[in-house]
Amino acid sequence: MTKAPDAGRRPQLSKDTRLCISLSGRPSNIGTRFHNHLYDVLGLDFIYKAFTTTDIAAAIGGVRALDIRGCSVSMPFKEDVLALVDDIEPSAQAIESVNTIVNDGGRLTASNTDYLAVQHLIAQHGLDPDDPVLIRGSGGMAKAVGAAFVDAGFTAGFVVARNAGTGAALADRLGYEYRSEVGSLTVPIIANVTPIGMAGGPEESDVAFDEATIAAAGTVFDVVALPSETPLITAARAAGANVITGAEVIALQAAEQFERYTGVRPSPEQIAEASRISRA
Amino acid sequence: MTKAPDAGRRPQLSKDTRLCISLSGRPSNIGTRFHNHLYDVLGLDFIYKAFTTTDIAAAIGGVRALDIRGCSVSMPFKEDVLALVDDIEPSAQAIESVNTIVNDGGRLTASNTDYLAVQHLIAQHGLDPDDPVLIRGSGGMAKAVGAAFVDAGFTAGFVVARNAGTGAALADRLGYEYRSEVGSLTVPIIANVTPIGMAGGPEESDVAFDEATIAAAGTVFDVVALPSETPLITAARAAGANVITGAEVIALQAAEQFERYTGVRPSPEQIAEASRISRA
Repeated sequence: MTKAPDAGRRPQLSKDTRLCISLSGRPSNIGTRFHNHLYDVLGLDFIYKAFTTTDIAAAIGGVRALDIRGCSVSMPFKEDVLALVDDIEPSAQAIESVNTIVNDGGRLTASNTDYLAVQHLIAQHGLDPDDPVLIRGSGGMAKAVGAAFVDAGFTAGFVVARNAGTGAALADRLGYEYRSEVGSLTVPIIANVTPIGMAGGPEESDVAFDEATIAAAGTVFDVVALPSETPLITAARAAGANVITGAEVIALQAAEQFERYTGVRPSPEQIAEASRISRA
Repeated sequence: MTKAPDAGRRPQLSKDTRLCISLSGRPSNIGTRFHNHLYDVLGLDFIYKAFTTTDIAAAIGGVRALDIRGCSVSMPFKEDVLALVDDIEPSAQAIESVNTIVNDGGRLTASNTDYLAVQHLIAQHGLDPDDPVLIRGSGGMAKAVGAAFVDAGFTAGFVVARNAGTGAALADRLGYEYRSEVGSLTVPIIANVTPIGMAGGPEESDVAFDEATIAAAGTVFDVVALPSETPLITAARAAGANVITGAEVIALQAAEQFERYTGVRPSPEQIAEASRISRA
């Protein structure tokens, strides 16, 4: 018998309440807290809950058959679901990776709000497409960040990754140069898309780029969101660089996802408060 | 933008919150209110919501893939789901009709708590298996009531139904006699399993049996639950008969279902209160 954490506060669920879910290999409570907090603040008749599955095709079949309104997708299902939806938006097509599925009466549309968030931040921070970009990392998120830059007109850049296979493949895909080490590169826009600086990880107190590379960069971008003040961001602020944090990426992608599910765009303040609460 | 009926009262949902659902052609809010009220009272980390579907196979596939803990099944899916589960308990096998599916880590077990509730009431009211039974009606619930009597040892009885096809088939199945009209039959146990006396129906103020049949019966059973004080029950009480109401059936079947989903048996008082609230 599992006790509810706060049994006194139960919504008046009805048959008309819309359900949104997430599907991931290892569910966390962050999305569940984030979305439910905003439903509450905005008075929306929705509930959100994280799920996992061992059968992604049947799970997506269930989303369709039960008319579940929205489905956030995380590792390891981001590629698998491409074959299970009806429409794929350019944001997901660009990187062959889905993090958001919207169900319109049985028709499933896939998108990638990480890619959209990075594109939005590039514009918001006024980055110059003539500046070369250095992307450190070659995983799924590096693919999203790289594609967002390339699609925003940043035609010159480098992919730096220890893994020569995935690193060279991503560089090739983006039309950037592959390097196994940063070495003496000085580039105006540098982005860390590795777990370096992530709380609880083995490189928690490492700085993703060395002092000279940071000093030469006008913009330093770190996708690590826990904490968002990574050693890299701290060093970049000290060096006077323009910084873009992982918290900005997460908040924007979540706001985009929220709007797609509900039709309502929370204010930046509401998003910030929901992010804070969901990570507390 | 749909407003929540009571947006201030939202539970702290988490990834560990268990979801139970119902599947029916025309969902009502009764089950949703009943189960959520009891989760709240009992401090259980569950939520319940009614769904409908146009693809019952994919919906049950979704129950399995999303590890939805319980699924209540109503018309028109009670027979279709037999082919979609892993195990069928005798209660569902007896009448080839399912109203409850429990999911134990991907293994789906089907049962019929209407049948179980009627069996329980037969025992609780101390009915004598030597007494013949008259069942009026030949639909799904009549099948459940008839099978519960036969399986409890009531070998002699009548099925009375206007529809000769389904009526004779049910009588044949039960080993009872078929009659198209009650006529001058006097039987110790009489059961109405038709919509006669149901609020809002065309026979709302009709009495399912005539005065002489009621006067001759020791026990009068009516499955109609809305209202549970039907014209038949009122007449039976006036005649001094032992009465069994539809409210008793519903409360017992729901308690049985609730216990199967959560492992917790609510008290009769909690069930009565939840029934009252869910129908308010």
